[in-house]
Amino acid sequence: MPRPMFVALASLALLAGSTALAAAASDEPIQPIQPAVVTKPAMVELGKKLYFDPRLSKSGFISCNSCHNLSMGGTDNLETSIGDHWQQGPINAPTVLNSSMNLAQFWDGRAKDLKAQAGGPIANPGEMGFTHALAVDVLKSIPAYEAMFAEAFGSPGVDIDRVTTAIAAFEETLVTPNSRFDKWLQGDKAALTAQEEKGYALFKDSGCVACHNGPAVGGSSFQKMGVVEPYQTKSKAVGLAAVTGKDADRFNFKVPTLRNVELTYPYFHDGAAKTLPEAVETMGKLQLGKAFTPEENAEIVAFLKSLTGKQPDFELPILPPSTDKTPRPKPFG
Amino acid sequence: MPRPMFVALASLALLAGSTALAAAASDEPIQPIQPAVVTKPAMVELGKKLYFDPRLSKSGFISCNSCHNLSMGGTDNLETSIGDHWQQGPINAPTVLNSSMNLAQFWDGRAKDLKAQAGGPIANPGEMGFTHALAVDVLKSIPAYEAMFAEAFGSPGVDIDRVTTAIAAFEETLVTPNSRFDKWLQGDKAALTAQEEKGYALFKDSGCVACHNGPAVGGSSFQKMGVVEPYQTKSKAVGLAAVTGKDADRFNFKVPTLRNVELTYPYFHDGAAKTLPEAVETMGKLQLGKAFTPEENAEIVAFLKSLTGKQPDFELPILPPSTDKTPRPKPFG
Repeated sequence: MPRPMFVALASLALLAGSTALAAAASDEPIQPIQPAVVTKPAMVELGKKLYFDPRLSKSGFISCNSCHNLSMGGTDNLETSIGDHWQQGPINAPTVLNSSMNLAQFWDGRAKDLKAQAGGPIANPGEMGFTHALAVDVLKSIPAYEAMFAEAFGSPGVDIDRVTTAIAAFEETLVTPNSRFDKWLQGDKAALTAQEEKGYALFKDSGCVACHNGPAVGGSSFQKMGVVEPYQTKSKAVGLAAVTGKDADRFNFKVPTLRNVELTYPYFHDGAAKTLPEAVETMGKLQLGKAFTPEENAEIVAFLKSLTGKQPDFELPILPPSTDKTPRPKPFG
Repeated sequence: MPRPMFVALASLALLAGSTALAAAASDEPIQPIQPAVVTKPAMVELGKKLYFDPRLSKSGFISCNSCHNLSMGGTDNLETSIGDHWQQGPINAPTVLNSSMNLAQFWDGRAKDLKAQAGGPIANPGEMGFTHALAVDVLKSIPAYEAMFAEAFGSPGVDIDRVTTAIAAFEETLVTPNSRFDKWLQGDKAALTAQEEKGYALFKDSGCVACHNGPAVGGSSFQKMGVVEPYQTKSKAVGLAAVTGKDADRFNFKVPTLRNVELTYPYFHDGAAKTLPEAVETMGKLQLGKAFTPEENAEIVAFLKSLTGKQPDFELPILPPSTDKTPRPKPFG
């Protein structure tokens, strides 16, 4: 559980209070990303295989990695995703990177954590189009998977609770430390250019950090999209109101992380902003009532690009083959 | 070029003729797979990124790895593949593993080598749905790709010839040595069980090796599907005749490799055989006029499963991000 662990580590650093580094970092509204500490390697390895396994979809073609592609910043780089039978999804796929730090999952926060999120797309008719029971049937028919579940959980058995627990355990390792900005935060002042430093100062002074703060530079609150001016969009998503039923929560969306934002285009819940300069301009106008000059925009964009961290590095997983008893996918049924 | 190199190595071994191992191996109709020797690492690394990059498709969603998934034996494990806008492909996706050893590419051999093959799916409206010119435009808009092309080829420039050269160079590394059967061939007689050895003897004595021979256990000739009895299928594929225009070549298909066949289900050009026992039964009847007993079938299947080699092991590639100038994909256009 990276989040509690991070909090514990941060508290320790504050308690110790002994190094200039810790003191400097604590003055900033953004904190460095801590590397993942893997305490259950068998669980993480199982979760990784499941994350890449398209047999969790009805078609046998769509895996978690299809829309949260770890070669591409944990996203699909599409405005909205492609689901079973090429259905167009209703919302932009958020990055899985550093998502363990989010206060909740999905743009509207309807899943309280990664485990709760992981089951959603599998059974969503517009996404992987399967059912939890059928996905579990597939896994149960493969002895190599059964053995991995037994090892990871300490007892035999495959069920959707274990499937989502393992996927979440893998996702919790998908953090991206060591960005140039984090090195700068940790005292290496040569890690940023003058333009990037200016961009960070502007990012703070303009009020962006009111929402984009913490280690994930976002993910810690819901905020209204369109504070100063209403946001014009074709998207039908209403945000948190879909969960709470409260009119006051309409168009309140989870603030996205800005970590690796250079990789996670296009931007906003509707994917309407194709580039970072466009996203910065729109945010300035709609959220802050500010028109950044082209120079200021470029400074903020330069700062944002310094938030790209070390991407997850692991070997492409090799999946255990189906057996003669494994139910076959139905891509065209 | 693994094939010429392999031939060279094999010739050397024959010329030397000095070890029992080499002599033993040379008596067999199947030879061990040689590990890949990478002489151009920058080229292979570039090819790997391109292989995993869905921006070579119109939709931004389909990469080479979508249908030749290296987590799943270099196939999609579907009867026929899913293409742009979920179009149903006309034929089963053959494995990319050890495909450098094929005498030609595609089931009908219409591409003479991997380089010629690699351009096909990109521009096929039913597969990646793009054009070579548009794919090259995407790559040219990304300075990180431009730098990789310059490094790999020794001069600047991105064109489709270079794209397919690099993809082919990566694919040539996708060989799977060290199967249990290869260890057995190389003298480790404990590498196979008695059942597997019986299966191999039966595989030779029944005539399977007439077509499934060489290091790839196939891939070295075109043969008629349905020699003794005609093959019943809904597939409209006519095989080699589509290339030569000769009626005599109707239903002549490239003999598929049986390396990693445990991973490459379903079987045949139409993907109609869901399991190995089913495929062995059909091959026996239609190609050899033999009805294998259940025991014999199980022996052959056991032997075939010993052909699973070491799968390619490499880190999931991280793709360079698009820039503000990169043309965006059109998944729903």
